[in-house]
Amino acid sequence: MAAWGDRLAGVRGVLLDISGVLYDSGEGGGVPIAGSVEAVARLKRSRLKVRFCTNESQKSRGELVALLRRLGFDISQEEVTAPAPATCQVLKERGLRPHLLVHDGVRSEFGQIDQSNPNCVVLADAGESFSYQNMNKAFQTLMELENPVLISLGKGRYYKETSGLMLDVGAYMKALEYACGIEAEVVGKPSPEFFKSALQAMGVEAHQAIMIGDDIVGDVGGAQRCGMRALQVRTGKF
Amino acid sequence: MAAWGDRLAGVRGVLLDISGVLYDSGEGGGVPIAGSVEAVARLKRSRLKVRFCTNESQKSRGELVALLRRLGFDISQEEVTAPAPATCQVLKERGLRPHLLVHDGVRSEFGQIDQSNPNCVVLADAGESFSYQNMNKAFQTLMELENPVLISLGKGRYYKETSGLMLDVGAYMKALEYACGIEAEVVGKPSPEFFKSALQAMGVEAHQAIMIGDDIVGDVGGAQRCGMRALQVRTGKF
Repeated sequence: MAAWGDRLAGVRGVLLDISGVLYDSGEGGGVPIAGSVEAVARLKRSRLKVRFCTNESQKSRGELVALLRRLGFDISQEEVTAPAPATCQVLKERGLRPHLLVHDGVRSEFGQIDQSNPNCVVLADAGESFSYQNMNKAFQTLMELENPVLISLGKGRYYKETSGLMLDVGAYMKALEYACGIEAEVVGKPSPEFFKSALQAMGVEAHQAIMIGDDIVGDVGGAQRCGMRALQVRTGKF
Repeated sequence: MAAWGDRLAGVRGVLLDISGVLYDSGEGGGVPIAGSVEAVARLKRSRLKVRFCTNESQKSRGELVALLRRLGFDISQEEVTAPAPATCQVLKERGLRPHLLVHDGVRSEFGQIDQSNPNCVVLADAGESFSYQNMNKAFQTLMELENPVLISLGKGRYYKETSGLMLDVGAYMKALEYACGIEAEVVGKPSPEFFKSALQAMGVEAHQAIMIGDDIVGDVGGAQRCGMRALQVRTGKF
């Protein structure tokens, strides 16, 4: 194994996953992971550029940042790449009007999007809103479309809350893919477009960046396929 | 296309799917499909052996037969091959103690099965019971097992109720398969063992039997792979 100095040679920017790296979500908002508040503070004092790259889709960026600030993190909305705003851009570009199957906490991100007469379904980590009725409504909406478009905010299998492992949006994406005989478009990690937009916002090239996350597929595999370095932490769902 | 006489030459037994062939389920139990009550009566007056082969997993066989009799069908419990009783046999043979994610209507079929300290998950068409909480409990149960076993009663994508198309158990099976990184065992159509048990109960060989159903994969494909003939009706989800 190469020494740390070698492995980090030429790194100018650090992309940090949030859930499982900075904190574990759960009752009362969640708890910071030991050492992470200080680690973010040290990164920010260093010469490195820092950006937060999350698949969090239960909360708006505003809510997420407010929560992290309460937990002690030095973070602002402008430093966060998240799938809901990225999805809104895709919807606008392609004239898509979504039926939303999302958590109430993230609904405000879609406030400026026309949702009348839907021509696609947008799926996020809806948590308790993944009821049979809501899933069936999304299914029926897709089956009524001539060209069904399903956009999924990430495709994670599960994540860790303080109370235990929790099913993530990817499981429900697979359910709708199978029922409708279609393939979803993923906005979020490990989509290359998503990583590229984070790199662009940071102003560094892929080979100058390292992604730090707890998901071997979404974080590590996705970043490496984009030409970035990656590092898996042993916290979160590891 | 061969004449009907040729296509049915040598047929001694008829397997009939129930949902989408005999009736469409829905409000108040459902409605018979036009002509089906009389067709069953005529088959039973013929020289052919008749058996009902269903993936219905929301109701016990007793409830299903009672409903069909109310709708006018000549049918008895002993004539029905259904996945819940077949699953109970598998559980007993392999010493499996299930965590059940099933509809309350079918729970009584598992009354004789030890459900303490589960070492597998049994999934059926749970309808409204496919809540996030129940799915997450099934997921967590599987993740805690060293050798996770997931048994799914059928793997249908959807079925038709009088009110429209409804997500079937297969979608939720795919969700758990993806989240846990495992493959489910299917009890029910199109599993060859399931068709064989129906043929055995009827006392006819595969090449002497024809399956009549509305599902191109579960009914037609499954039966043909067992060496049976098959016929897809244009009712139900067709």
